[in-house]
Order: sequence, then structure tokens, then C-alpha cells
Amino acid sequence: MIHSKEYFMKQALKEAEKALKKLEVPVGAIIVKDNKIISRAYNLKEIKKDTTYHAEIEAIKKASKKLNSWRLNDCEMYVTLEPCAMCAGAIINSRIKKLYFGTSDEKTGACGSVLNLLEDYKFNHKVIVEKGILQKECEKILKDFFKDLRKSK
Amino acid sequence: MIHSKEYFMKQALKEAEKALKKLEVPVGAIIVKDNKIISRAYNLKEIKKDTTYHAEIEAIKKASKKLNSWRLNDCEMYVTLEPCAMCAGAIINSRIKKLYFGTSDEKTGACGSVLNLLEDYKFNHKVIVEKGILQKECEKILKDFFKDLRKSK
Repeated sequence: MIHSKEYFMKQALKEAEKALKKLEVPVGAIIVKDNKIISRAYNLKEIKKDTTYHAEIEAIKKASKKLNSWRLNDCEMYVTLEPCAMCAGAIINSRIKKLYFGTSDEKTGACGSVLNLLEDYKFNHKVIVEKGILQKECEKILKDFFKDLRKSK
Repeated sequence: MIHSKEYFMKQALKEAEKALKKLEVPVGAIIVKDNKIISRAYNLKEIKKDTTYHAEIEAIKKASKKLNSWRLNDCEMYVTLEPCAMCAGAIINSRIKKLYFGTSDEKTGACGSVLNLLEDYKFNHKVIVEKGILQKECEKILKDFFKDLRKSK
């Protein structure tokens, strides 16, 4: 059975929910190869006290371990929020083929918002980007998180 | 005793030499706080089979562990080669104050060559960049590595 983009983004959203339960900014990512999920991860920056613990970086690390290679050429990533420059750079470096993201990040997004690292520069690898998959759901989980955070302060 | 920029870059070069001995692209990085080295790392991408194992990312992870915080506000990084987009993004995210690098990377450098992520965009943190510290030595170790690599093929 071939899964839809929405099916896979729902799986990334499930990861975001795991982050939410740990009071982390709810962002989740999965990596898919041949229609199968090969890695799942969510943001753990505050708990790990390490800014590199974004969902995308962890998903890339896990997928590389699974495939026993840093080259993720035939893989696609689904992430609920537009990647920042660090994560966009990691996506380029890992040679991921296509990135699907849910909602844009106007402040730090490096895949079309602040800039587009994946498509606008002459790096040795270009990544196809498709945005807006389950956009409302991906946006809502973040908005609710920040609303609750402000209330609690 | 206050150490010079050249002293610190020499320490980063020592890390690059460790990478060289393991047949990795020789890039080394250190992070300095209050005139003391708090982390050292070198590129291990091929051995770890993980594209996130750049010297800079590992140096940031180690410094965060040491300081028990993802915020590296009063830290400076010394790296032998201009950071790529992934590493430049991690440097911004970690709030490192200043970056010193040895030699430029015309193909993937994201701190002045292909683009300048650290200074040209409205992210929530700007990093001061100074390049050309021990430029010749930092360039030579890389050139020699690639010359030997071509010979061996």
C-alpha cells in the first residue's frame, strides 16, 4: 500500500506530540525510504541542553545508523515545521531527495521564509521542497504550545 | 596568560591532524570561554557514517555538555575551515559570540563564500566572523590531504 503525503505528515505530527508531552517546542520529523518510515524523531533541545537536538538532526542521525551510510539519497523527510539553517544544511549534506514540511517559520525558516538554502544556492546537492502538508494541524500544535507557555508565565 | 588567536587556531589545527590520521577530511574545531578551551573536536563523518559529525557540531555538543546549557553566549569558536550551512546554522542556534576560521571553502562555505548566514540575515542572533587566522597552515593540511587522496585512486 502506497501511503499519502498526509499519512506521513501525520506520523511526523505524532512525533511533535511526544515533544509536547515533554514541554519541548512541538516539532516532529520522520524519514521515509521506499514508502517506509526508517526513522522518527522529535525536538529535545531543552531536555538535552543541546541546540543540535532538533527533530531533523536526530532523524538524520537515526536514518544514517539504520542505512549504515551518511548518504540518504533516496530518502524523503517530513517535518511539521520549516527547518532552520542548521537543519536545512544537514538535509543538503545528507543528500535527502525531497523535503515536505507542514507550516512555515517566518523567523528562522531556511527553506523559503528567511531564505531558501535548499533551492537557491549552488551547493553540490539540491533538495526539492513541498510545503503546506497538513499545514493547519502543524501550525495549531505550535500555536497552542506557545499560548499555554505565555499563560503559565 | 592571555592566548593569541594564532595559539587557539593552532589547537584547532591539532584536532585537524587527528582527523587526518584517521583518513578523514582534516578539519578541526575548538570552543573557547574566558580564554580557556572548553571543547575540542574533529571531523569524523566517514568513520561515523553520519553527515552531522562535522568538527563544529561535535565541538558545540561537547561545550553544551560541559556548560550544562545549549546557550554558548560568551564562547568563541576556532575552526580550520569555513563552516558549511549546517554548522553555521548550529553556531547561530548556540548563540556563539564570535567565529574565527582559517581558510575559506568556496564550494560550501556559508560564512562569506557561497553566502554569509552569520552576518547577512535577520536571525535572532548575529555572530561576528574573523577569517584568515593561520590561513596558509589551514589550507595546506587540506590541499595535501586531497592531493594524497587523488594519488591513491
